[in-house]
Amino acid sequence: MVDAGIAFAAMNAVGLVAFAAAGALKGRAAGLDLFGIVVLGFLTALGGGTIRDLLVGRVPTSLQSNVEVLFAAFGIVLAVIVSIRLRDDPRETPALLLSDAVGLAAFAATGAAVGIETGLTLFGIVVVATLTGVGGGSLSDLLLVRVPAVLREDFYATPAVVGGIVAWVAARAGVDGGTTTLLAAGAVLTLRLGALRYDWRLPTL
Amino acid sequence: MVDAGIAFAAMNAVGLVAFAAAGALKGRAAGLDLFGIVVLGFLTALGGGTIRDLLVGRVPTSLQSNVEVLFAAFGIVLAVIVSIRLRDDPRETPALLLSDAVGLAAFAATGAAVGIETGLTLFGIVVVATLTGVGGGSLSDLLLVRVPAVLREDFYATPAVVGGIVAWVAARAGVDGGTTTLLAAGAVLTLRLGALRYDWRLPTL
Amino acid sequence: MVDAGIAFAAMNAVGLVAFAAAGALKGRAAGLDLFGIVVLGFLTALGGGTIRDLLVGRVPTSLQSNVEVLFAAFGIVLAVIVSIRLRDDPRETPALLLSDAVGLAAFAATGAAVGIETGLTLFGIVVVATLTGVGGGSLSDLLLVRVPAVLREDFYATPAVVGGIVAWVAARAGVDGGTTTLLAAGAVLTLRLGALRYDWRLPTL
Repeated sequence: MVDAGIAFAAMNAVGLVAFAAAGALKGRAAGLDLFGIVVLGFLTALGGGTIRDLLVGRVPTSLQSNVEVLFAAFGIVLAVIVSIRLRDDPRETPALLLSDAVGLAAFAATGAAVGIETGLTLFGIVVVATLTGVGGGSLSDLLLVRVPAVLREDFYATPAVVGGIVAWVAARAGVDGGTTTLLAAGAVLTLRLGALRYDWRLPTL
Repeated sequence: MVDAGIAFAAMNAVGLVAFAAAGALKGRAAGLDLFGIVVLGFLTALGGGTIRDLLVGRVPTSLQSNVEVLFAAFGIVLAVIVSIRLRDDPRETPALLLSDAVGLAAFAATGAAVGIETGLTLFGIVVVATLTGVGGGSLSDLLLVRVPAVLREDFYATPAVVGGIVAWVAARAGVDGGTTTLLAAGAVLTLRLGALRYDWRLPTL
Repeated sequence: MVDAGIAFAAMNAVGLVAFAAAGALKGRAAGLDLFGIVVLGFLTALGGGTIRDLLVGRVPTSLQSNVEVLFAAFGIVLAVIVSIRLRDDPRETPALLLSDAVGLAAFAATGAAVGIETGLTLFGIVVVATLTGVGGGSLSDLLLVRVPAVLREDFYATPAVVGGIVAWVAARAGVDGGTTTLLAAGAVLTLRLGALRYDWRLPTL
């Protein structure tokens, strides 16, 4: 059986690469110069974790450790190379959508874990889990002066919300931290893949 | 005579409900799905206090206590029910405008109180008071990609600025904390109601 | 020879006045009322330093000290007076472009210095230096619902990035803090003036 810690680290790495690539491709599609493309890649990959750290009063890990930065840089380079070679936009390819779902799950789960550690309420845990998952993409939308896609388009943030609730329930039930994180990530991934496969949507009023 | 602490807590509660309702109605008017409407409600009600806490280096109370969250949730539910039953937008009704003014006063006054506690300058106290009062609404405008109404439209932020100055003067003059907060809230409420009644505006250049 | 500390403080003061004036003029051009113009002036001048302080876990100096606030207020008053007297927009005048370049250099250099003190990685130092330099202008663009000019238009943020790298290299090489800051500021100023003079641009993809 795969070690839980390694499984989770792998999911997080996949997410960093996918988020960074998606952000860089978004910047290119918006006609930004190379600097803007790199900024959007890093912001999309590292923005959620940075919001998480600021909310709980920590100096952002993205500014203190090179591990996440290197994965994000790899995603940006990959996106730039693919962009130049293919001359079209791979943002809707299954590979990127799947990697993005893996990233959403890993990010929301780390957000929930940090919220639990900090002693937040259920509401606080859900907010931090959700912002860690969708914050990077939303910040990059705001920089491009767009309503964040999560507010408008699809069943993307809802899995992160559910992941936060799952983590809170597990922690309350005395489940250990590692298992709690994996349960939350599993819930997010399942719901997100279901939403992609079956085109789930929330109602409007 | 009414106890000052109770009077203030009541103002704060009225503000949370009114801000949450106004945010949820804004989200509905913008065509958001149910998730987006809930996000806008919570953000409008809790965003100002969250900015206040981040500026002075505290973990936001909205993530650590359920009291404010419950009042905001009540405001969102109220707005959703009214929306579905009335099929029109109650944002300009006197009841909501009045409750909103009460909330602005309570929020600006708590912002000023936190600024004084933290030992900020007059400028710092005014900034924190104003952002606590208008920050939630402004964040929700930004999420919807709109110039924050306070920057453009009317005499809304100015009362909060004056409230911050009143609190600073009172604290300097040795007035105790509770009375200082009530004086500031009273100044904000008076000015805001005056602006609504007499349509005050600031000049443009 | 001029004392290094005085030279740097002078650059910082010039930058605060120039950034505040540019922000106020931007607000006036956008048709804001007097409150909005003042907000944009202060935000442009003080926003970068505020982001810097929040990222490294400090209460923003702009809320705790009046020195920077007074320089910014002077810039706003200057812009308002010039606006009323000239009835045109002096934002592209050489005097303002030059002062702005001096400010960018001073702000990016202080950001790098704070990043080094906090023990950040190279990436972290570059992020903090760049956000300190361009954060105020970008926040004011976002408040006006515009894609931040630095993401789109010209060779403005790149000098700040290089300044962060220069500071990191100097600190690594054992150069003392004051000289490191001056080296970083010099690199930023040289590159920014070169970009203005020779119209340098980064490639798009």
